[in-house]
Formats: sequence, C-alpha cells, structure tokens
Amino acid sequence: MSPSAALDDSKGNGPASGPLTVDGISGLRAKSAPIPLGVAPATSSDMFKSSNCYTKPKAKRFDHVFSLESKSRTVSTLKGAAKFLKNPGIISLGGGLPSPEYFPFEEISIKVPTPPGFSPEETRESGAVLSARKGDAEAGKGLYDLQVALNYGQAMGSPQLLRFVTEHTELIHNPPYADWQCCLTAGSTYSWDTTLRMLCERGDYIMMEEYTFSSAQETVLPLGINVVPIKMDEQGLMPESLDDTLSNWDEAVRGARKPFVLYTIPTGQNPTGATQGFERRKAIYKVAQKHDVFIVEDEPYYFLQMQPYTGGDSSPVPPPANHDQFIKSLIPSYLSIDVDGRVLRLESFSKVLTPGSRVGWVVGSEQIIERFLRNCEVASQNPSGIAQIVIYKLLEEHWGHKGYLDWLINIRLSYTDRRNSMVQACEKHLPREIASWNPPAAGMFHWIEINWQKHPGLSSGKTRQDIEETIFNAAVSNGVLISRGSWFKAQNLNENQMFFRATFAAASSDAISEAISRFGGALRTEFGI
Amino acid sequence: MSPSAALDDSKGNGPASGPLTVDGISGLRAKSAPIPLGVAPATSSDMFKSSNCYTKPKAKRFDHVFSLESKSRTVSTLKGAAKFLKNPGIISLGGGLPSPEYFPFEEISIKVPTPPGFSPEETRESGAVLSARKGDAEAGKGLYDLQVALNYGQAMGSPQLLRFVTEHTELIHNPPYADWQCCLTAGSTYSWDTTLRMLCERGDYIMMEEYTFSSAQETVLPLGINVVPIKMDEQGLMPESLDDTLSNWDEAVRGARKPFVLYTIPTGQNPTGATQGFERRKAIYKVAQKHDVFIVEDEPYYFLQMQPYTGGDSSPVPPPANHDQFIKSLIPSYLSIDVDGRVLRLESFSKVLTPGSRVGWVVGSEQIIERFLRNCEVASQNPSGIAQIVIYKLLEEHWGHKGYLDWLINIRLSYTDRRNSMVQACEKHLPREIASWNPPAAGMFHWIEINWQKHPGLSSGKTRQDIEETIFNAAVSNGVLISRGSWFKAQNLNENQMFFRATFAAASSDAISEAISRFGGALRTEFGI
Repeated sequence: MSPSAALDDSKGNGPASGPLTVDGISGLRAKSAPIPLGVAPATSSDMFKSSNCYTKPKAKRFDHVFSLESKSRTVSTLKGAAKFLKNPGIISLGGGLPSPEYFPFEEISIKVPTPPGFSPEETRESGAVLSARKGDAEAGKGLYDLQVALNYGQAMGSPQLLRFVTEHTELIHNPPYADWQCCLTAGSTYSWDTTLRMLCERGDYIMMEEYTFSSAQETVLPLGINVVPIKMDEQGLMPESLDDTLSNWDEAVRGARKPFVLYTIPTGQNPTGATQGFERRKAIYKVAQKHDVFIVEDEPYYFLQMQPYTGGDSSPVPPPANHDQFIKSLIPSYLSIDVDGRVLRLESFSKVLTPGSRVGWVVGSEQIIERFLRNCEVASQNPSGIAQIVIYKLLEEHWGHKGYLDWLINIRLSYTDRRNSMVQACEKHLPREIASWNPPAAGMFHWIEINWQKHPGLSSGKTRQDIEETIFNAAVSNGVLISRGSWFKAQNLNENQMFFRATFAAASSDAISEAISRFGGALRTEFGI
Repeated sequence: MSPSAALDDSKGNGPASGPLTVDGISGLRAKSAPIPLGVAPATSSDMFKSSNCYTKPKAKRFDHVFSLESKSRTVSTLKGAAKFLKNPGIISLGGGLPSPEYFPFEEISIKVPTPPGFSPEETRESGAVLSARKGDAEAGKGLYDLQVALNYGQAMGSPQLLRFVTEHTELIHNPPYADWQCCLTAGSTYSWDTTLRMLCERGDYIMMEEYTFSSAQETVLPLGINVVPIKMDEQGLMPESLDDTLSNWDEAVRGARKPFVLYTIPTGQNPTGATQGFERRKAIYKVAQKHDVFIVEDEPYYFLQMQPYTGGDSSPVPPPANHDQFIKSLIPSYLSIDVDGRVLRLESFSKVLTPGSRVGWVVGSEQIIERFLRNCEVASQNPSGIAQIVIYKLLEEHWGHKGYLDWLINIRLSYTDRRNSMVQACEKHLPREIASWNPPAAGMFHWIEINWQKHPGLSSGKTRQDIEETIFNAAVSNGVLISRGSWFKAQNLNENQMFFRATFAAASSDAISEAISRFGGALRTEFGI
C-alpha cells in the first residue's frame, strides 16, 4: 500500500462521514456542482464521488504496465482548443459539430416497469413512459437533453450517466483508494480489447482460468499474446497455481517476460459457473501483490449472485430483507479490496439490463483510466448517445438507486429459480455414476463433469476428445444442444477431464427439465448404463 | 481487373436488368428471402443485393495486405455450434443469451419528421411517432422486434438495417465488382481504427493528405504507423504527388516498406474543404492500381455536396428536380469506380442523421469485410441495437429510400445556404491583401489561407508558427474561435503556408457573419492594414 498521499480537501462532495449509503446520495448531490448540460462536456467521476473517497491514500503508480502503443498516446489537439469556449461572448467556428436541427429525432420515449411491478404484465399495468426531447434542458424538463445525446460526446461518457454509475460503484464497491474513476465504454468486450492493447505487447503471456470465456480468449490470441492457464477448483482460480506459475516462470524457456496481467471472471465464471469466495479473492490478491500482477476482473454476472442452493426438499433461504442486506450479501469484489489500484474492473449492463445497449463501464485508478480513455477517444469515441440516454432515463429519472437495487434483487431471485430448476433436473435425470456437478452460486452456467474414463469407447482406442464429440453428437441427436467443455479450454491447457456447459439463462423451467432429461438419455446410451 | 469470375446464378435477387433504381427496390425485395426475425441471425449483403451485381467480375484477392494480427483471426468457436439450432425441436442450453423478460424496456418510440416537412416546427405538425415493442414480430407488427434489438447481435449488424444500407449503397455507388459487402460498425472512427489494425504493422507508413483530420491521424500514430503527406491543390489530393512518393520510395532510406495504404477524405475534406472532381478521382485510382495501393475513402461529408457557389448577386442554381437528378449530381465515389476491390469505404450517419447513434458502416470486397468482421466480433461486437432499431424505424418504416433522399436533398440545400453565408461573410469582411480561399463545394469547412509573409512580425524574427499563434490569439481576444491550420498538418509535413479553418456547420448565418467580421478585424490589426 502506498504511503498516505497528500489529501486534497477541495475534492469530493459533502463532509467525509463514512461510506456512502443509498440514503446519503441525495445529500451528496445537493452539495455537488450542477451537471453540465451542454454538448460533449468534460467530465469525470471526481465530480460525483463523496468526500469519504478522499480520506483514503492514492493508488500506486503503474507506469511499468503500459504497452508502447498506450505510452504513445497523446491528448487530442482539437480538445485543447475547447478551453477558449469559456470566454464570454465568443463565437466558435472551431469544432465540426453538426447543428441539432439536422438530427431528425424530436423525441424518444421508452415504456419501462415501475418497481416492484417488474413483469411484462405489471409493466402494462403500472409501467411508466419516459421521454426525452430536443429542447428539454432549455425548458427545465430534464438534465439530459436529446439534442445533446444525439451529438458527439466525450469518450468518458455523458456526465448524466457517469454520475449514476459512479455513485453505484461507490455504493457497492467503495474502493479503498482515493483516485478511482469510472469510464463508460461501448460494452465489456470492447473494454477487454482496449485493456489488452493498453497493457500487452506481442509475445507476452497473460494468465487466465484454465477454462475461460472463449470470446475473451479469441480477443487475446490474434494480438500475438499467449495464455498461461491457471488451475481451478470448485471456487475457481487457485492462488497456489497462480503463485507456482509466477514463482517458477523461466523467461528463457518461455521466451517471454514474466506475466503481469491476470484476467479472471470471479463470480459465476463462464463456463464453469464457479464463484470465488471472499477468502479466495483475498488470497489471490495477495499473490498478485507479491508478484506485482495487474488484475482485470470481468464481472458481468456479479448481480447474478443467487440465494444459497438448499436442495429439492429444504425450505429456501429468505430473500434479502432490504437494500442494505442485499448489498452485504454480495461477495466483495477485487475492486473493493484493491488498496494498490492494481485492478481494472469491467462492468456490464448486458446481463442485468440489456446487451443491446452496448454500454458498459470500467473502474480503475485515475492513471489507468486516463490511458484507457486515450484509446477510446480515437476508436469507439463514446458509447452510443441514444443508448446512454435510454439507460439514463430508466435508472436515474425513474428507478433511482433504490429502484435499481429492487430490480437487481428481482433478477437475483429469478436466476435462483432458474438455477434450482437446472440443478433439480440434473439430480433427477443425470446418471450419477458418470456425471457430477456443484450447484452454481452465481451466473448463468452449470458445469457438468463427465467421467469419460468409464466410456466403452476407451477400450477401442477413442481419445478423450473423440468421446467428448461422440457425447455431444448423441445429445444433439437426442434434441438438446449443450456446449462442449473443450470449446472453453485456455491455450496451453492439457485437458484430462471432460465437461459440458449448460445455461439456465434462456430456456423455461420445463424446457430445462426436458433438455436435461434428453442429455441424461444420451449419456446413458453412450455409457451403456 | 481480374478475369471474369465464375458467376453464381443463384445469387442476387430478381432478374439482372440493369442498375438498381429507387423504384426497383420493392420488386427486388419481393423476390428476396424474408428477413430473419430471430436473435442474432447470420446475415450479409448477399441477401439484399440485386442480380445486376453478379453480372460483374469478382474483386481481386488482396491476401498480401493483411497484418499479422488480422491473419491470425479465426471464426468464433461458439458460432460454429449455432448450426445445430436449425434442428427441429432442439432445446438449446448452449448460448449465454439472457431471456428477454430481463430487459426492462417494453417499448421504444421516436418522434420524427415526415417528408417534406423536415423542420422542427413541421415535425410538431406532421411528424410521426414510430414505436417498437417486445412482441412486435410475433404480433406481425414489424420486422425488427425490440426484444431482438435489446439482445446480443451479429457483428455484421442486424439484417433489418443492413438491408437498408446495402440497397442504399447499390443505389448510390453500384460498385463495379460482384462480391462487395456492407458491414455495420460502431461509427467511422472505430472503422478506421479497425482498418489500420487489419492492414498495417508497426513501422509501416501510410499516405494521407498533407492537411488531414487530426483525430484520424491520432488514431494512426500510437500504433507505430507513420504518415507520408501527399500534396494537395484546390481539388485536394494530387495524383502526381502520390505517384512521385511511391515511385521514389527508398526502403533503405525510409527504413520501411513501400506504403500501400492511402487514407483520403475525397469530398469536403477536413480541414481544407477540398473536393476531388471525378477526373481527379480516376487519376488517383490509376496511380493506386499502378502501385497496388489500397484506398480507404472516409466519406462522412459525401451528402454535404452543395449547389455550385454562384457569388453574392448571381441567381442560385435550381435544386435537383428529382431523386435521379440528385443522385447524378453527386461526384462518383472511389467505390463506384473500384473495378479491383481495392477500396474500403467508411460510411457515417454522423453528418446526415446523428453522430450520437455511433452506427456507421463500411463497404468493401467480401475478402476485406470478412477480415474486418473478425476483429469487430471480439471487440465492438456490434453497434448498439437500441441505436440500430431507432435508425431502422426512421429510414425503413417511415421514410423509405425516397424519404431519405428527400432528407439528403434538404440537407444539401441547408448546407448550401450555410456555405454561402460563410463565403459571403469572407468576401465582405476579410482583407483580400492577405486572405484567400476557394468556396467549398462540399462539407462543413472553409479553409482560409493567410499570406503570413506580409506579417510585420517577420522582420523581428518571428517564425511562421509564431505568427500563426499570434493571429489565433488575436482572433480569440476579438471574440472568435477559429482552428489553426497547423493542428491538422500531417506528420512529416514541412509547413510553409498558413491556413485557418472555419466551420459553417453550427453557427447561425448572423453569427457566422459576426464571427468572420471579428476575424477580419483581428487580421487587420495584426497585419497593420
């Protein structure tokens, strides 16, 4: 941890009176400067964080982690001129921003649910229609004007939506260093691509879970970056394996410098469904400190943490009684224990609001976010303003933080039901002689291990890979599509186990039961049980 | 030009009866397969092009232009499994797509103008409200369902919007080879970043106009790619300079292979406002063929081609009498003369609909688009579905191709008025002794040359750069912000002229006049006139 940094008393909003609470947000806002209403205003999380943040030391410097590409980035020439726009009475012939009269959208409206009536049926009854028009700001009808959303924006995102995610981040994670920042992005896949280009050089190795999200690895490999797989157990990533890998790294043998980037999905990991407990996270963070590793935590499933699985006949655990209990029920993130500023958290609305927005955000230290932003400015520019204003209207103007937490609790309970259907179907339909699993604590995925050593094809010379394919095809023939574990294997992993991944995100409870029954049938036939 | 390729009679829609016309589109559609309505369907422009396209030879292969990164890209593992979804009755536990009941948006609506009533006032009178709901497709109420738009999509874009831009591209550009494709993107800045990573290696040189869009260059340089500036005249890029550069390239002296990528803004170039005439484009294309150069044409201002400037007292040229005349009035694009498939066209809605959508598209040969797509899949994923459905509703369901052409004519005439205000203000207020310009034929920018050799500071040892700064500061002090030409200079350009860039995109006619008057005042003071 860095020595207590000089604290800037002018920063932060409101008195430093302990961690931010949901009820404290209105007070925080009352003491803050007003949201800038114009086109593409400069903005940052500093405008929205509470004073409590600045009682903490600053993040460490990570000058040594940036790629040559990232180090070469400079501030945009044209942005430098924007400072003159503050001169009173000045007429700008400078920027190339189109005039709003050429945006043929006068108004945009969305129909959305009102808490607690979240179902489509209840939305028809009690839902609200939220609208944004071109002249709203001038007419005093809202802080995020449609003509602003339709114009160019800053890569950091609109201050209106950035405020919400900054407050949400402080509320949920309350990072233990002072100078953390959020930056809106064009979705987590884009955030990951940008992060890789910011940190890694061709020929580098990064560390990933031995089974990992295949698209995340497909982002890595074409950049000439290699993967060293880290072993997992039922809680996912194992700190011992991480430490071993790093302690025994031989640059000469590997032909590459010691890895310094760890990519992990701590909660409801894709594909294994594993969730790292709090002690596990602390142990991994400690190894990261020991070897000066930078952690990228990709957390789309964080709010798909479910109620404990109690089995078919036991009574279910009661849902969180209130927002506070809900927040306390969540396993703390790496961000929340990151005293050094060595974590970049990739946040997503895809699993809790909509993947179609292509709006997400990242959280990291000011130094990291500044470099990240320099890439976005000349690539994605900014997430779609149309998507930003739609999400803003819902989260900020209709739900507020309380309504959003209600929604997240609703999602938690829905996924608990789905997970229960899946696990109960497996208990009922799968042959225990060869199939085993752990009930997932979070996410969308159920990971089923198959004891392939018992497959009769083994004696006729079939390989592990052959048998996996045979089972997959048998399942398809029996009317169920289920993902092969090998599709998710990290580069350089020598597989000796066999898994299949089943998602409970989309199908109905009945369809899940029928599908698992079909899979069970295919397994029985294959294994001659 | 490649030898006449084997033609596939099964491709294309409708009989091959000459180039596609606006009136021919309904017939073309009637003969096409229906739009796929599901979540993230595979799609390509081949579904939407007319048979006329396939009477042409195929594009040349450009295997030699791809970067190592691009050549390393493979098709997503998980996408391979999607083919099984076609099995009747199969239940998928495969993909991780969230269920639409977790998207808290039941409906989205926009209020938009009805042609020809395009002004905000007329929109209030005669505008239409267009809506998309979650259950639309099932209810037979539209082809692009909100629950599809809110889910994950394909990197190629939604088939619904891809169809519109494919037809629009065929209508306007009718590329002279068979296998061209469109791909929707997260905006042109992102398209350019992706293109660079697809084509170039660290250490390469690319060719750009000697004054170029500064952000486009800021995308280039951090990638370790260098710029060789190509000379310009009043029509922009000069073919002789391009040929000279390439003919005299000395790999040993430069320490880099001969450049093979040209980036150009052919129409209303930023910052110079120059527009390449048709003969100029053909001459440049010929040089590109001679040296096997790949052309990236960045064309946000293509539809900001204006009526000819006739001066203060002459009568204006009558506007295009109909759509056909309008299309014929446009200078043909590089895409439209690209017999080889050596052009990638970057298309944008930013200047004609809204920059806030962050939706654009690119057009190129099938081979190029396939590689481009492989990058998008693991980075941007796809442009925001919320933005796609909003644009689709407007262009497809309300305006159609005819209404969109009406809108583009409306924009053309509006920008003509703006340009006229700017040029007339310059004629009235700027000192001709030291200021000169050409009336721009397209775009948003007016480029004013200042004869800095006449500046009194020269005798006291001031440099060109010093004098530019002095004039800029004098203008700011006099209440006008105008961009310095040097902000746009290409890397490696030795400047010996001096320019200022003024935009007529945003300010009103009166404000433009006042601003230019202030600039004139600053110039007179500076030069002691």
